[in-house]
Amino acid sequence: MQAGTALFTSELRVICAGVDVFAEALRRQSVPVQALDWRPPAGGQLELSDILTAIYSDGELCARINAANAETLRRIGHANPQIVDVAPAHEALGLAGRTLLHAGPPIEWPRMCGPQRRAVLGAIQFEGWAESDAAATAMVESQQVRLRPNHSYGAVGPMTGLISPSMPLLIARDERSGSYGFSTFNEGRGNTLWFGLYDQGTFERLRWIRDRLGPAFRAALGRHGPLSVFEIVAQGLQMGDECHARSAACTALLLKRLVAPMLEAGVAPQLVAEVARYIDGNNHAFLNLTMAAVKATMDAAHGLPYSTIVTAMARNGVDFMLRVGGLEADWALAPVAPLDEAVYYTGYSVADASGDIGDSAIIETCGLGGMAIAGAPTLAPFVGGRLADQFAALETLANITLGQHPRFSLPTMDGQHTPLGIDLRRVVETRSVPFITTGVLHEHSPTVGQIGTGIARAPLAAFDRALVALAHDWGIPTALPLPAELVRIDRSP
Amino acid sequence: MQAGTALFTSELRVICAGVDVFAEALRRQSVPVQALDWRPPAGGQLELSDILTAIYSDGELCARINAANAETLRRIGHANPQIVDVAPAHEALGLAGRTLLHAGPPIEWPRMCGPQRRAVLGAIQFEGWAESDAAATAMVESQQVRLRPNHSYGAVGPMTGLISPSMPLLIARDERSGSYGFSTFNEGRGNTLWFGLYDQGTFERLRWIRDRLGPAFRAALGRHGPLSVFEIVAQGLQMGDECHARSAACTALLLKRLVAPMLEAGVAPQLVAEVARYIDGNNHAFLNLTMAAVKATMDAAHGLPYSTIVTAMARNGVDFMLRVGGLEADWALAPVAPLDEAVYYTGYSVADASGDIGDSAIIETCGLGGMAIAGAPTLAPFVGGRLADQFAALETLANITLGQHPRFSLPTMDGQHTPLGIDLRRVVETRSVPFITTGVLHEHSPTVGQIGTGIARAPLAAFDRALVALAHDWGIPTALPLPAELVRIDRSP
Repeated sequence: MQAGTALFTSELRVICAGVDVFAEALRRQSVPVQALDWRPPAGGQLELSDILTAIYSDGELCARINAANAETLRRIGHANPQIVDVAPAHEALGLAGRTLLHAGPPIEWPRMCGPQRRAVLGAIQFEGWAESDAAATAMVESQQVRLRPNHSYGAVGPMTGLISPSMPLLIARDERSGSYGFSTFNEGRGNTLWFGLYDQGTFERLRWIRDRLGPAFRAALGRHGPLSVFEIVAQGLQMGDECHARSAACTALLLKRLVAPMLEAGVAPQLVAEVARYIDGNNHAFLNLTMAAVKATMDAAHGLPYSTIVTAMARNGVDFMLRVGGLEADWALAPVAPLDEAVYYTGYSVADASGDIGDSAIIETCGLGGMAIAGAPTLAPFVGGRLADQFAALETLANITLGQHPRFSLPTMDGQHTPLGIDLRRVVETRSVPFITTGVLHEHSPTVGQIGTGIARAPLAAFDRALVALAHDWGIPTALPLPAELVRIDRSP
Repeated sequence: MQAGTALFTSELRVICAGVDVFAEALRRQSVPVQALDWRPPAGGQLELSDILTAIYSDGELCARINAANAETLRRIGHANPQIVDVAPAHEALGLAGRTLLHAGPPIEWPRMCGPQRRAVLGAIQFEGWAESDAAATAMVESQQVRLRPNHSYGAVGPMTGLISPSMPLLIARDERSGSYGFSTFNEGRGNTLWFGLYDQGTFERLRWIRDRLGPAFRAALGRHGPLSVFEIVAQGLQMGDECHARSAACTALLLKRLVAPMLEAGVAPQLVAEVARYIDGNNHAFLNLTMAAVKATMDAAHGLPYSTIVTAMARNGVDFMLRVGGLEADWALAPVAPLDEAVYYTGYSVADASGDIGDSAIIETCGLGGMAIAGAPTLAPFVGGRLADQFAALETLANITLGQHPRFSLPTMDGQHTPLGIDLRRVVETRSVPFITTGVLHEHSPTVGQIGTGIARAPLAAFDRALVALAHDWGIPTALPLPAELVRIDRSP
């Protein structure tokens, strides 16, 4: 009873974990209490926490996971993705016949969200396969057009993410692994397919990108040589970009870098002027370079057995899909989370919003975007309005990541490196999900486009399902069946 | 004795102003003490505090000062300085014969610092007035070359600040007041006159600036129209620039803006490529535009009787000069403060350093540079290494300024606007001086150039002297004589 005696005679100082009612009772008796925000693992879902317990208590398995995760982090951190060329999608991806690619998981036409449907109809007309909305719709409904996810071709597209065969693609190649990633050129502002809008001006712009910008960019690259995307990204992080919702600095640095090579490659002055005006008017111009580069990087890091690190996230406005390093072929699906935290433009609300959309969420798997949100203090309104809110938001990410990106540091955080390597186990255990800096599109209007901007959260269900799938792969006994919400997205239709 | 009784029976809580020995004695008796960092006004210099008391106790005088300061702030805040043209110094300033302009106060050749002397010799040879150092030196010593401060011609130059007749100048004009400011093009890195270095490459570069860059820039401006400098500066502050020691973002934005007009104006593609490469390789390219624009702004705000706001600071490596709005023609002089707070490159120290130098310190009078230091988190090492140190440094400036710049806000400070309007009275009273973000040059070496970077402090003596001069102007009785260290710098030799 020695300890007991001491307890009753000494001054009490209590740490109280979990439910606050105990802490409150002590506080009423003037006992100093430090509340610990403890919650049961996996939100109290016993089947999930049993899987986690089985993993963490198996030393051999843990060693395999740790080794795979370390190698995954190494591959991401050491990647040097470069834009090496520009080529039309039919050539770069071997996109055959009437195939269109779109952002996010595979989806049937009737379930597609408004902006993505409109973008599909626009792309069909841009390709000249049909000359009216009605004809284009009929073509899709009669399955004369094949709709496939960008990721099934190693490509990524922002927002609706439409890629049609004649569109020129930026080709990124990781110098270390030889892995590739592809993306379109950013269309910029106005009525654009990426926002789910189109008119004659949209088609004119797409033709200009195809016939003028693409070749000019290709010529500049030929003279400049491979363009290291992360070299510019690392500078952009020092200049107020987080490289998903904001790429203003990277865009300016890109043009600064390419003007001389473009001219020296013999591109006509008038065309260089057009390119310069186009980039000057579109602060998102660099976004698609980042996306292609991150895709090349994350594909190089994907596929290590036992890796629990997220290697891609993608959304189509309806469904979200999650790729985890050790789940080789399967992606886990879940409905997108509501965009109720976004900052809406005057006159719009979440009621007008289409669902979370775009392949760009892959950016967050690479230590950028939401993972670098404090690098862009102008985006403070996304998470509360102050830089301190951005610091706090970033802190929540440290709990679900396994490392920091070796090349990406934030001067606003006194040089701290950005969180890297979203660990599936930690997300399932803590119920804390990564957030994505994104734009919000109007679901119904064919003329409005973007109605807000802010953060989107990845849906927990996708993480839970991926963990269950891994448990099945690893032979961990569980009462949970292999989830039906898994999808393989190879090139077959 | 009621109060006395209460004092001895109640719990003591003490605020202790000034000397800490009283607070310490109370603390030893466990009395809670809040120490107030109080110091006697004007550092206890009674003659100066008498002047301040006379000013603050004269209601009519205070009203005049307040009105003049309010108008000074309004003129600074409302200025819209634009780069309107480019012309050689002999044309733009009417620089006649063998006249060279330099940064800072007037100075005799024998007292000039090393870098500025070397820059003078280099400029003479660039102009072809002499063909060797010896001949150039003889020419200066025999007064065949006239040396004058840039400010005497309404111009400003960074570091050594040399302007010779054939150099092309950026011409800034405040759209509101019609006031002008002039500066050279930034020479960039390497052996350059602004760093007090020269060789044949220096002259080649200066000829390229004169014959190629100047005309190309002029043509671009002709097509673009007047270029609003503060529009770009305001964006740069959102992108990691404080616009004195760092102009990386503004430089990229400048090129992005001018490429198309330059090409459309018919500038040869090869020349545009040269300009693009030059700007891509020189993150300070925008600095000189900022300086010319700020000079136009501050000249528009200068000269209001009774204004106590600082309208210029300039240094030549030996002497510092201070201009105050209500001291119409006189500038107050003092020796430059030692550069003992700078961050020196490996192998160098303050012992190698030339004195604080350059007209660029005018930037700090306009809410930029040191006044915006937290806008450039990469410059945290200047003031301690952390963003929090930059916040703290900025807080000290709030005590000596009268307002905030209406167009310049810092996203790192949750949108706070930068301190504007350095009040001579507050500097003298608090002994807190503005600091300037700057580079440091080697005093002796003809090949080394920059050896450090960091903050320089404005010398207090110049502020004290300006206040005494104002007291004499205003008929305030004082035992202090009119300072000898006042200078007028009109165009006469």
